[in-house]
This record gives sequence, C-alpha cells and structure tokens, in this order.
Amino acid sequence: MFGGGNPQDIFSNLFGGGGRRGPRKGQDLQTEATITFRESIFGTNLDLRLGTDRGAAQNITARVPAGVNDGAKIRVKGKGSPGEAGPGDLFILLHVKAHPLFARKGENLTLTLPITFAEAALGADVKVPVLSGDEVTVRIAPGTPSGRTLRVKGRGITKGASTGDLLVTVDVQVPQRVDGKALDALKAFAKETSTQDVRAELAAKAKL
Amino acid sequence: MFGGGNPQDIFSNLFGGGGRRGPRKGQDLQTEATITFRESIFGTNLDLRLGTDRGAAQNITARVPAGVNDGAKIRVKGKGSPGEAGPGDLFILLHVKAHPLFARKGENLTLTLPITFAEAALGADVKVPVLSGDEVTVRIAPGTPSGRTLRVKGRGITKGASTGDLLVTVDVQVPQRVDGKALDALKAFAKETSTQDVRAELAAKAKL
Repeated sequence: MFGGGNPQDIFSNLFGGGGRRGPRKGQDLQTEATITFRESIFGTNLDLRLGTDRGAAQNITARVPAGVNDGAKIRVKGKGSPGEAGPGDLFILLHVKAHPLFARKGENLTLTLPITFAEAALGADVKVPVLSGDEVTVRIAPGTPSGRTLRVKGRGITKGASTGDLLVTVDVQVPQRVDGKALDALKAFAKETSTQDVRAELAAKAKL
Repeated sequence: MFGGGNPQDIFSNLFGGGGRRGPRKGQDLQTEATITFRESIFGTNLDLRLGTDRGAAQNITARVPAGVNDGAKIRVKGKGSPGEAGPGDLFILLHVKAHPLFARKGENLTLTLPITFAEAALGADVKVPVLSGDEVTVRIAPGTPSGRTLRVKGRGITKGASTGDLLVTVDVQVPQRVDGKALDALKAFAKETSTQDVRAELAAKAKL
C-alpha cells in the first residue's frame, strides 16, 4: 500500500464533510505492483492477492494494457471495499523494472549498440536484437561517430494505432588489451594517420 | 531592461501602499549586460551607459567578481533614481555567453578532449589547454573508453578561497575516410581482433 490518497479521497476530505446524502459507495483501495519492462511494453495479466483490514483476502486478476509507463495507475472496478451503493474500486500503482538493454523514450525504444572501431570507420551491417524476439540489420555508414543515433522505423512501442521507432545509439568500443599482431597493425594504422590532428582546433578555441 | 521587479519592488507593492512614513529612497533601476565565459570566470569591469526616463544618460563602471554564473545579479549602490533619502540602487542582470570549448559545472570547468582510437587503446600523454592560457598534460590509460572523464585537480574556477577542478571527458574520434596503407592496417587490426565479440552479451540481454 502506498501513501497518498487518490483524487476522490482528496475531494471527499475537502468537500464531503457533513454533507453526505443517500447510500454511499464503498471506499476505493490502493495497492502497488512491479512488472518487467517487457510486460510494460506488451501488456500482461496481474495476479494479486489483496488483504483488507476486515474480511477475507481475495485473489484479483487485473489486465495491464500494452505500453504502460512506470508510475501508471490501473483501475479495477468494483474491487474496493463494499458499501451500501456497491463496492469502491481498486487502484494499482505500477512500477516498471529497468531492462538491461532497452529503455523507453515516449513511444520509442532505445538501445545502445556496441560497435568496433573498424565497423565505425569502415562501415558495417550489424544485427540488432529487437524486444519482440527477432532481430533487424542496421547499416553503419563509414565514419559513424560514437554517440550517433540511428532510427529503425516501426520497431518501437505499439500503443493503440501508433507504433514508435527503435533508436539505436552506437557506442564505439575501445579494447582493454591489444597485443601481438593486432598491436603491430594498430601501430601501423596510427603511423599512417598521424597527419590527421584530432585536436587541431583545440588550442585556438581555448583562447576565445 | 527586463520584466520582473526586484524583491524590494514586490514588497513595496504588497505592503507599502498608504503606509509610507518619512523621506523615501529613489527607485532601484535594472538593466542587463552580456559578458564572455572568460570574463565570468576571471571577473571584469563592465562599462555601461545608462539612460533613464528623466535626466541625462550616465556612464557607470561596475565590477563583476570572478566566478559569476549566468543569471547572476550585480548591485551597484546609489546608481538608481534620485530620492529624498538618497538614490536607489542599480541591478545588472548578467548573461554569460557559451564558450566553444569550456563549460562550467559548479566550481569545475569541463572540456571535451578528442583523442584517436590508438591513443585510447594504447594509452597516451595528451596536452590539454586550460582557460588561463597554459596547458596541462593528461595521461590517458590504455583501454580508456570514449566518454570517460579525467580530473585535473585545481584547474577549475577560483571563487574566494576554493578552486575547482578541470574535468576532461575524452571523445574517441572516428576518421571520416580511411584509405591506402591506413586502410590495409585497419583491416589487419580488425582481422587480428575478430575473435573479440563486442556484442557478445547483446542477444542474451535482449531476451530478458
């Protein structure tokens, strides 16, 4: 159970005192539940066991629709406390667990894609997993800088009639250790590109 | 001149109506000025020409102390409108222009340092300009990933008795074009490191 009352509770506190007429509905109840990132994207059925102050605990199944955000509230009609005019409702506050790979930005999914320096410099076609289970091939253009975001249309979050995109941000990896022939090759590459000064503008800009 | 009145004005509006006693000070005036990033760090003297509704324009010199932030207000005593009990004050709202290289984070200066892939992978000592004019040498450890931030102690913003640091964030550059012997060397490097799968965990993580 969580702290703050729902809007109806606030209203009854503010305006309801002493002015009640006729039979009243039972109180609304609140609880919370944690779902996975995947469940938040595709929807799920929540099985909850709800214990109340008085009366026996009850099992409740609530449908979580596809595309819900962390912090969303699900309303289950008639599963609150009983009352003269019928039971109140149950509100479920949803927490969404972070995914180790995917994140969400509106209706888009985001993913950080590790690529090698050679893939970034020379270009490559790279297979990228999508949340639904299969994979897509993303074309890395030659000279793609670390941090550039590529858009895969229609592989985002489907919510009603619209579907977002998958935003793939490339992250050029630096090897932790280089030795043997790889070291020789990298030294040769460094020598051949030594005329390209990546800090050419740095000193001039610093004077401004 | 800018919109909102200063706190004193607000107070006089709220509480001052009809309750005035004795001679009053002249009104406070407000103006704004734009300074460079460098001026905001080291301080500067501002020469302003202030025109008022009545009376002749006056030249005012205001001292901007070292380490001021964008949006800071400088108070120049006695340079407001004249009044029976003496003149009011002048408030100068400062805008600080962005620097092409340096930025500010509290009392620290920040700088993005382009480095080559070979420098990141093999390690290097790299000269970095500092805002005061000279330069410092920063040691890049072998295997430094793009986005890592290195701290240069005491090369930040001096404000009173304390001095911040210079935070250097390395940015591994990807060449826009690779050809000739450099291309051969990079292909050889890619071949020698092809057993290192930078996306080894991607497919497994995607299933979670």
